[in-house]
Amino acid sequence: MRILGIDPGSRVTGYGIVVKQGPELGFVTCGTIRTAGERDFSRRLLVIFEGLCQVIEQHRPDVAAVEDLFLARNPRSALKLGQARGAAVVAALQRRLAVHDYTPRMVKQAVAGYGQADKEQVQRMVEMLLGLNGSPSSDAADALAVAICHANHVDHLAALGR
Amino acid sequence: MRILGIDPGSRVTGYGIVVKQGPELGFVTCGTIRTAGERDFSRRLLVIFEGLCQVIEQHRPDVAAVEDLFLARNPRSALKLGQARGAAVVAALQRRLAVHDYTPRMVKQAVAGYGQADKEQVQRMVEMLLGLNGSPSSDAADALAVAICHANHVDHLAALGR
Repeated sequence: MRILGIDPGSRVTGYGIVVKQGPELGFVTCGTIRTAGERDFSRRLLVIFEGLCQVIEQHRPDVAAVEDLFLARNPRSALKLGQARGAAVVAALQRRLAVHDYTPRMVKQAVAGYGQADKEQVQRMVEMLLGLNGSPSSDAADALAVAICHANHVDHLAALGR
Repeated sequence: MRILGIDPGSRVTGYGIVVKQGPELGFVTCGTIRTAGERDFSRRLLVIFEGLCQVIEQHRPDVAAVEDLFLARNPRSALKLGQARGAAVVAALQRRLAVHDYTPRMVKQAVAGYGQADKEQVQRMVEMLLGLNGSPSSDAADALAVAICHANHVDHLAALGR
């Protein structure tokens, strides 16, 4: 099972794909979609949408896991973040991927063992869990962490019949 | 020029299309996309996206105008609203429509003459400006109002060379 993890952001959206074979996790790809160069906010949403469509086209994941971002500081930034997330979720759904949501806390818990882990700890743990040579960028690592989080939940979800 | 107006919402998304021929405005269609029945929030985004894609497919608008919603009460609802808006904007953009943003104030100003107009005033003015027989629902009227707002700005935008 190939799992696409997405860490949406209005400036940088991270993505990462892991493959789960039984209890084993393998690395497929990761990267970032950068939109800061777009003058127009709406155009950023299209860049996120099309960037993720391209990743899905190329790597054919079976399912998507998207970080849920309820920690926005204020309504204005939540609205921007929300739009980026909406563009990302729709990219996955319209390619017929099921989308699972995980809070930042659940993601950190899954990769680092506790919900307050900082970005560097997440990066290091992702590197270790997937046996990477070198560190992915913070946004790509977050996306891989979301994918790993879903991998850990798959058996649990199966047991619940979802 | 056919203008698609969109009033995005995570439960109800209104849409309306008007046709502008010189200074004349005509009514093409309007309606709502209801997502409240979806258990899953992500599925709501897909319903919005696919619903708007279908409207665009059927009525072939030339441009889209989307209400910008910065009046959300709190980050949590802003995040939901933002995701609905992101799904709507991406539907328009990936069908190659330019997307223009208008604040609720600009929309009310355009149809009712002042920025504090209430929902019923907007409904009545939309009905009058488009010569409708009967009142569209509040969400559909809001979407038509956004389209009318863009129609009023078209000449201005042209003068600015946009």
